[in-house]
Amino acid sequence: MQMEDMIIISVDDHVSEPADMFDQHLPAELKDRAPKLKSVDGADYWVYEGIVLPNTGLNAVVGRPKEEYGMEPQGYAEMRPGNYDIKARIDDMSVNGILASICFPTVCTMDGSIFSRSPDRTLNLRIIQAYNDWQIDEWAGAFPGRIIPLAILPLWDAELAAEEVKRVAKKGCHAITFPDNPANKGFASIHDKFWEPLWKACNDNKVVINCHIGTGSEPRHPSDLSPMNAWITAMPISIANAAADWLHLEPLLRYPDMKVALSEGSIGWIPYLLERAEFTNEQHIWTNVDWKGKSPTEVFREHFLCCFIEDNFGLKNYQDVGEDIIMYECDYPHSDCLWPEAPERLWQGLKDLPENVINKITHENVMREYSFDPISILGRENCTVGALRAQAAHVDTSVKSTSGLKPGEGKGVVTSGHVTAMFASMMPKETP
Amino acid sequence: MQMEDMIIISVDDHVSEPADMFDQHLPAELKDRAPKLKSVDGADYWVYEGIVLPNTGLNAVVGRPKEEYGMEPQGYAEMRPGNYDIKARIDDMSVNGILASICFPTVCTMDGSIFSRSPDRTLNLRIIQAYNDWQIDEWAGAFPGRIIPLAILPLWDAELAAEEVKRVAKKGCHAITFPDNPANKGFASIHDKFWEPLWKACNDNKVVINCHIGTGSEPRHPSDLSPMNAWITAMPISIANAAADWLHLEPLLRYPDMKVALSEGSIGWIPYLLERAEFTNEQHIWTNVDWKGKSPTEVFREHFLCCFIEDNFGLKNYQDVGEDIIMYECDYPHSDCLWPEAPERLWQGLKDLPENVINKITHENVMREYSFDPISILGRENCTVGALRAQAAHVDTSVKSTSGLKPGEGKGVVTSGHVTAMFASMMPKETP
Repeated sequence: MQMEDMIIISVDDHVSEPADMFDQHLPAELKDRAPKLKSVDGADYWVYEGIVLPNTGLNAVVGRPKEEYGMEPQGYAEMRPGNYDIKARIDDMSVNGILASICFPTVCTMDGSIFSRSPDRTLNLRIIQAYNDWQIDEWAGAFPGRIIPLAILPLWDAELAAEEVKRVAKKGCHAITFPDNPANKGFASIHDKFWEPLWKACNDNKVVINCHIGTGSEPRHPSDLSPMNAWITAMPISIANAAADWLHLEPLLRYPDMKVALSEGSIGWIPYLLERAEFTNEQHIWTNVDWKGKSPTEVFREHFLCCFIEDNFGLKNYQDVGEDIIMYECDYPHSDCLWPEAPERLWQGLKDLPENVINKITHENVMREYSFDPISILGRENCTVGALRAQAAHVDTSVKSTSGLKPGEGKGVVTSGHVTAMFASMMPKETP
Repeated sequence: MQMEDMIIISVDDHVSEPADMFDQHLPAELKDRAPKLKSVDGADYWVYEGIVLPNTGLNAVVGRPKEEYGMEPQGYAEMRPGNYDIKARIDDMSVNGILASICFPTVCTMDGSIFSRSPDRTLNLRIIQAYNDWQIDEWAGAFPGRIIPLAILPLWDAELAAEEVKRVAKKGCHAITFPDNPANKGFASIHDKFWEPLWKACNDNKVVINCHIGTGSEPRHPSDLSPMNAWITAMPISIANAAADWLHLEPLLRYPDMKVALSEGSIGWIPYLLERAEFTNEQHIWTNVDWKGKSPTEVFREHFLCCFIEDNFGLKNYQDVGEDIIMYECDYPHSDCLWPEAPERLWQGLKDLPENVINKITHENVMREYSFDPISILGRENCTVGALRAQAAHVDTSVKSTSGLKPGEGKGVVTSGHVTAMFASMMPKETP
């Protein structure tokens, strides 16, 4: 097997949704109330029911020189079209050897929660359904076999959420985005019986719960003076706190097909956490946790999915992670993305593993867990890195300089305080 | 090499300080203002300048049946004498095959910070010095070669802290306890120039900065309804956030002998974090971090020390952690402690490693880094697990039942909410 033979599916990318996304998915009387993309001095904002969402391109820096990476793209004009245009996205995937992709939302934040924060819940639900129809029919529908659609949910009512899970599953969507810790975002704890209908619906319809880092259990910035790279370093592993919480979720023992994906959490620390969970539950029997005869490691391997951008230590220890729960992610268009050289970098970590394990990690685990089969649609010979790149020879991958805010004015070490202040400065003084 | 041949030094244990600890270390006119151990209905409290510290035996459950573990021992009568009596402690160490131990404080919390929170700073400094004299002269002094003394510092003034480091170093103390993230505890960020005198003093006097989990970067409880074991599982790895922050500390590049120990942080996730730090600093050059030609991994291996209670995944990957930075910890008397079978459990993880690596991990790394040589004091033949246990044949290790608060009334799964409420209930209604 060679690098060009890999079939790569990415389970964590991002979309900056296009301005016209709601046009085809809402009746005329509701279109005026859909989120609108507005512009102030070149900065774009989504506005929904008075909620202003700046930073429409959070970290969407793919295609820039590394010196111009950052977290600040404010306007679509600063971004590569692959951020918002599906045809350009498919091109950017192909030139990067990526067959298929899960795209997390931006308009409603990564966990979709913005549309659960407005008081008009009748409207919220319609917008959520319209969002999902856009993901499924337009974003994923335009190029069959290339996008795994990802739905968002009403988080104020688990019965409604369960109904939406059933609705999107009927349309072929087997993935939802969900806060890694909803209790930290103002919603019910995952351990609240409140969520029972949702867990059952996900189990019964084989819908994977995707919990992206930064949606509840993210680390605080260590201090305003801390170099920004400290926080960036710690960001993925911080989902360990949420992972431990989900691992102790009793419904997992009742719903054999309930699956939780730790999106952008990486894998190299997983074996440590599993051993720690075993140790904890062996020592701390005073807490009366009942594992129903299973071990924490068994429960994790049966119910969790993990992914990585680059994690060669984790890959070396793939047997301790679990070869059936590891998936790949590209993180396009964020600054950890290795576009357009993802296959070259991925191959370094994979090339010494058995071929059947490489296939599991690159695509077979995803296909099984997300009920998604691009190979039957496109033909295996058209799915490999080599084939996709051959189709994308026209794509210009040269780096392009763009302007942008400079936290800390570009001088000295950029700190957490600089970036926090930059984000605060992005909020417009008046509602756009 | 056999289990009995190991020489084991533990770098993380705890002491519930005895009531008379300040008697010999303060002049008569200050004795009345020293922290006092007071009792209300069998619960003991340290009281200092109006600050009440309940839970004097935080998690001090060693010797109980596991069903009675918990975080609630409130009174010294509920604890094994080894918690507060040095002779009993040495016996408990010997019967557990532990040659020497670092004991974190309880009276002033694990990072010593209580004595920096009171307004009378002249008094605070005297109390801090008296505390340190007690650790060095009494607790460690009673049995030479058995206790590595650990000093606390004034955290409001880094010049004073540096002076105290120099003072205790002259007395043979080469370890301080320090918050893993002082900014989260109301003190200056580690990146603040404020601390420069302290870093220099630690470097110049070879004094190790010991950052215990739970002293700034600990995880929030995921939710009130979360099973307590979720939080316990995630507790050690949560120091990854602080580790990433310290790793990006510029003074490390100027002070070659500055050392930071991640106490109770464990080791199995370290290789992942180092790879992540490399990746972050390769991708995020826009933040202008200057590593002066070193890599994050090199800086970590030169300046950090890690320890584990049980972490066989980490030990299997000791080369990726760094065989010169791994140490062992016992965590006596807390509920993760494997007393009195620590050697049996440790040997399972070590027995397949090369003998020179076993020696580094069990004692040589500690001896070098903490300028501590018990072997020259006691003779090598008296330092092994086998020799220590032979001296401790009289020690009664049978489990003893004790009463205690029952979070959640002992029924059903104990949650974070139960434990949080229990801690709140420990605070006396009136100042003892």
